[in-house]
Amino acid sequence: MKAAVCFEKDKLSITDIRFDAPQAQEVLVRMVACGVCHTDLSVLNGTVKMKLPCVLGHEGAGIVEAVGEGVTHVKKGDKVVLSWVAQCGECYYCRIQRPNLCLLGEKINATNRMPDGSTRLHHDTQDLNVFSSLGALSEYSVVPARAAVKLPADAPLDKAALVGCAVTTGVGAVLNTAQQPPGATVAVFGAGGVGLNIIQGAVIAGAERIIAVDVHPKKLELAKVFGATDVVDAKAGDPVAAIRELTHGRGADYAYEAVGRKETIEQAYMCTRKAGTCVVVGVGSVKEQISLNVFVLPLMEKRLFGSWFGTADVHRDMPKLLDLYSQGKLKLDELVTKTYSLDQLDAAFADMHSGVNARGVVVF
Amino acid sequence: MKAAVCFEKDKLSITDIRFDAPQAQEVLVRMVACGVCHTDLSVLNGTVKMKLPCVLGHEGAGIVEAVGEGVTHVKKGDKVVLSWVAQCGECYYCRIQRPNLCLLGEKINATNRMPDGSTRLHHDTQDLNVFSSLGALSEYSVVPARAAVKLPADAPLDKAALVGCAVTTGVGAVLNTAQQPPGATVAVFGAGGVGLNIIQGAVIAGAERIIAVDVHPKKLELAKVFGATDVVDAKAGDPVAAIRELTHGRGADYAYEAVGRKETIEQAYMCTRKAGTCVVVGVGSVKEQISLNVFVLPLMEKRLFGSWFGTADVHRDMPKLLDLYSQGKLKLDELVTKTYSLDQLDAAFADMHSGVNARGVVVF
Repeated sequence: MKAAVCFEKDKLSITDIRFDAPQAQEVLVRMVACGVCHTDLSVLNGTVKMKLPCVLGHEGAGIVEAVGEGVTHVKKGDKVVLSWVAQCGECYYCRIQRPNLCLLGEKINATNRMPDGSTRLHHDTQDLNVFSSLGALSEYSVVPARAAVKLPADAPLDKAALVGCAVTTGVGAVLNTAQQPPGATVAVFGAGGVGLNIIQGAVIAGAERIIAVDVHPKKLELAKVFGATDVVDAKAGDPVAAIRELTHGRGADYAYEAVGRKETIEQAYMCTRKAGTCVVVGVGSVKEQISLNVFVLPLMEKRLFGSWFGTADVHRDMPKLLDLYSQGKLKLDELVTKTYSLDQLDAAFADMHSGVNARGVVVF
Repeated sequence: MKAAVCFEKDKLSITDIRFDAPQAQEVLVRMVACGVCHTDLSVLNGTVKMKLPCVLGHEGAGIVEAVGEGVTHVKKGDKVVLSWVAQCGECYYCRIQRPNLCLLGEKINATNRMPDGSTRLHHDTQDLNVFSSLGALSEYSVVPARAAVKLPADAPLDKAALVGCAVTTGVGAVLNTAQQPPGATVAVFGAGGVGLNIIQGAVIAGAERIIAVDVHPKKLELAKVFGATDVVDAKAGDPVAAIRELTHGRGADYAYEAVGRKETIEQAYMCTRKAGTCVVVGVGSVKEQISLNVFVLPLMEKRLFGSWFGTADVHRDMPKLLDLYSQGKLKLDELVTKTYSLDQLDAAFADMHSGVNARGVVVF
């Protein structure tokens, strides 16, 4: 079968690889679609360090082709979306209802191997590492059973793929991490794949005002499609001042950062009012530090939250997101700007990098 | 009447001053006791910038001597504790039930004058600024009406004075700011007047384990009196490593910082587990910045809260704290290490600075 493999930094190969049959507590999925995410590009260009060679892709949906021993929650023919945190259900974080922080998921993501260190994907005689043990940019994928999340039979898989990462991360940041109450004034820094979903999460949460901040005019236009009531071009001046002006000097009740840069995180923190909440969703460089004033910290009573994969319980949230789509409350169609074949993945990365897509999706 | 006045930096005067009769929406209080707080010393030595001359003291309790026009919630003879945030009841923050951030209170604390810019205290022909419009280190005080919080008739005023700042700030950080659930593992950085009250707040909230961190062995002993189950001498090694060891490598569920220093805030943040909460209570220098890693922020899903005056509604919380004292659930007697006359205030500051007191209290 064909898969997108990074054998060495900056080199993307669409090549034939082999897969093993699923073992106990594993599921073989025929991939139907996979979203193209910045993190895949970051692996390719070395920003995110990952042991190579590695099969890319972590935002996919497909149809169950076979299940290993002991798998009961899905069967052949079921539609599934893949989760890049597997959720063991047994560790401390699963027990305190924070399965997005699952220790097994953490281990899988640190090694890009199955929990026992093995892999089901091979290129000739070479074992392949597999992004989050999903490797969803391939025609078939063998995943840990709990990473396969069952979807309703009518779910459109080419759209549902995006629920595997960007949608859950963005909407979840609002509904789960911040638990944003109705009537809020919200600022969203970054209107890319995740930021647009933060915006529509804010709409679902009943926000009164949603101010989108970006440097790409095209993304700001997209932000309006997803529910932004105001847009701020961060290239045109200080976005914090612009947000203060839009909020009668008070600042935003909630600010979300979906860029992962020191400057934008600090701006998101600064633009909130006293007792406001700043949620950091964007994943940035381990080499950068944000800087917050010691005196202001207690005085303003602001809250700074980290948000990882939308604080989601994927088996609870992903089907719910598809329900919201069916009810017309969640936009998925508008997220997919363009589809690509796997062979066109290079072009998809280039389009993402230039900022012309809400999201690009590879369809198999 | 006698009052503690700072006419110039580093010079404390216990001197005779005059007071005016209370005007509309003001209350004249005969002070019975006033706690000696670090912030008073900071005004004296210039760390906290305040327009001089200024009457010191902001942690006092006394008996209503007279009320101005329109005051209905207290009458002559009532016991009251003074609040250094007046809570107007009408501004945005009062309306969203964050009266500790009241805009009128903010204005009063910025000017140390009555809301209209005037003052009721004078030295010869000179108008005096008044710390938070309280100036509780004086025999009488004329305060904004809402700054006088009515207490039960059996409240012991020499103890109740501490509810005016340290107790409300510390206990409130746990019960109001963090809303700490039962069974938590807690780290408290700084076991001074505020830190000890964080510790007993954690006890009230049903914490399973409370780890106190300080550099003074005497304060660590006091921490045990207030409910610390473990103590860490920060001089003996890295306190973050010590807390990790005490929590089987996981880290604390909640960490509170009651020092106001860059290093201790960063340590408090670092010592929490994934999805843990760090609450900054200590007020530090406007010249210091803390530094947090951009990559770790979303990944660990930690929450960083500022806490100001215990996120308190003083008219709700201060009487409740006295009730808890009556029920034996809140220690106030043990907080008062030593009492002083107003003439001994210099000695009280020196004892506070050397760390020998939980709290010193001036009794009139």
